[in-house]
Amino acid sequence: MIESPRNARVREVRRLQQKAERTSSGLFLLEGPQAVREALECRPELVTDLFVTPTALERHTDLGDLAFRHELELQFATEEAIDAMADTRTPQGVIAVCRQFPASIRTLFGQSSQAEGGDDRDGEPGPKLVAILEEVRDPGNAGTIIRAADAAGADAVILTGRTVDLYNPKVVRATTGSLFHLPIAVDIELDAVLARVREAGMQVIAADVKGDAITELSQDELARPTAWVFGNEARGLSDDNVALADRSVRVPIYGLAESMNLSTAASVVLYASAFAQRAGE
Amino acid sequence: MIESPRNARVREVRRLQQKAERTSSGLFLLEGPQAVREALECRPELVTDLFVTPTALERHTDLGDLAFRHELELQFATEEAIDAMADTRTPQGVIAVCRQFPASIRTLFGQSSQAEGGDDRDGEPGPKLVAILEEVRDPGNAGTIIRAADAAGADAVILTGRTVDLYNPKVVRATTGSLFHLPIAVDIELDAVLARVREAGMQVIAADVKGDAITELSQDELARPTAWVFGNEARGLSDDNVALADRSVRVPIYGLAESMNLSTAASVVLYASAFAQRAGE
Repeated sequence: MIESPRNARVREVRRLQQKAERTSSGLFLLEGPQAVREALECRPELVTDLFVTPTALERHTDLGDLAFRHELELQFATEEAIDAMADTRTPQGVIAVCRQFPASIRTLFGQSSQAEGGDDRDGEPGPKLVAILEEVRDPGNAGTIIRAADAAGADAVILTGRTVDLYNPKVVRATTGSLFHLPIAVDIELDAVLARVREAGMQVIAADVKGDAITELSQDELARPTAWVFGNEARGLSDDNVALADRSVRVPIYGLAESMNLSTAASVVLYASAFAQRAGE
Repeated sequence: MIESPRNARVREVRRLQQKAERTSSGLFLLEGPQAVREALECRPELVTDLFVTPTALERHTDLGDLAFRHELELQFATEEAIDAMADTRTPQGVIAVCRQFPASIRTLFGQSSQAEGGDDRDGEPGPKLVAILEEVRDPGNAGTIIRAADAAGADAVILTGRTVDLYNPKVVRATTGSLFHLPIAVDIELDAVLARVREAGMQVIAADVKGDAITELSQDELARPTAWVFGNEARGLSDDNVALADRSVRVPIYGLAESMNLSTAASVVLYASAFAQRAGE
């Protein structure tokens, strides 16, 4: 039983709240029974440590079962010790350490260099819907967009190097498990991403308040394989980045609101694509 | 200059963080320069007190101009005193007290009792899009849905008696000014609301995970005047409340996400109505 918040292992785990420590170790934190459950159900092989209070284990017996099935040893700790490992929210007596598992952009869009002069993915349908986040800084927004992209059936999400860290505990929490549901690539420059998605035959649409109203696009245009690019919540995308896209599109504001919340606007456009792509299915 | 956080006026203002105090006084708090600016621009007659630090006034000279134009006396206070009045977030040296201004449901949907036997709103178009929140408990969700309804051009938002208080500082903040942009009625029972919106000729659609996929509705069906009903973020609408609606509809989940965030789902369906209603305009 780990009792003290000043225990060496507690302090080690706690350091994963810092990005530098996450990056160098390749690990991140899962806080609370729901996040840990999702990980154990979707990617049990990634979970390296599971800390619980005896009370939390009594309340969430399924976590004990899942850990047993995947031969993961439970480590008992006091509430104080677990709270000391966690970020702001109360982890309800459950915390886990998990290996990072960024998707490779090569895997997402095929080995294009080998495919030169021919398509090595013959007959295999390519990606139809991708969300790219460029300089999204708010963890709640980033996580909520990942969750919405998952709901809309997106093939992948890509976080460029200027976007908040995917493994930030607040991002992980806001994805409510979607982190484990679809491939997410990180730390790539926007122009490199766009080259890849274009090779995969996708159009690139920048979400931009100065763009065309999405209602100006035909259903056929919306139904094409599309990579949406979303920018910073306060400043939007830079003009240079908008210029990299094939087209820029906005959600029209019919009322008096000055702007839309980034994650709600992203949900509207991702679903507009998904609805058009699946029409008549 | 109000200097002490223990000043009697500071403690009076601070009490407006409690719902009971807001309800009995009919007042609420606006925290931070942006919320205060929106109020002074949209509804200056409602603002009863404006507290600023000298530093904040230097930084936001437009607030001084607005206050002067509307003959509202500025009250200087120290940063400590203003922080003591505010809810969790830092108010950046600006806080105001504002009168509550709930919309009357009679005004929203006409004086139906006088209209019996005839339509007294001849030629005047009735409401086309309304959002009803039944037992939405999370302040951020409630405020974000109000903001999305404003963006989608909704005619009104209605918060039933089981929904979080509109004048909760966290709700006010999440609306980012939309509170002042469209009529919002509060504290009404759902069945009474539905009777009114039906008299106004609107269909009632419950947002419900067990409902029809929104893609099953034709554009004509979506284009009809519609009141959307949204339920609790964890439990959704009760079966009894779903049964009160003409139809129940869900946003289909195409990926592996177990559920959508309430405010992102609400944005998708409110915009689906708005797009259909404005098609061909």
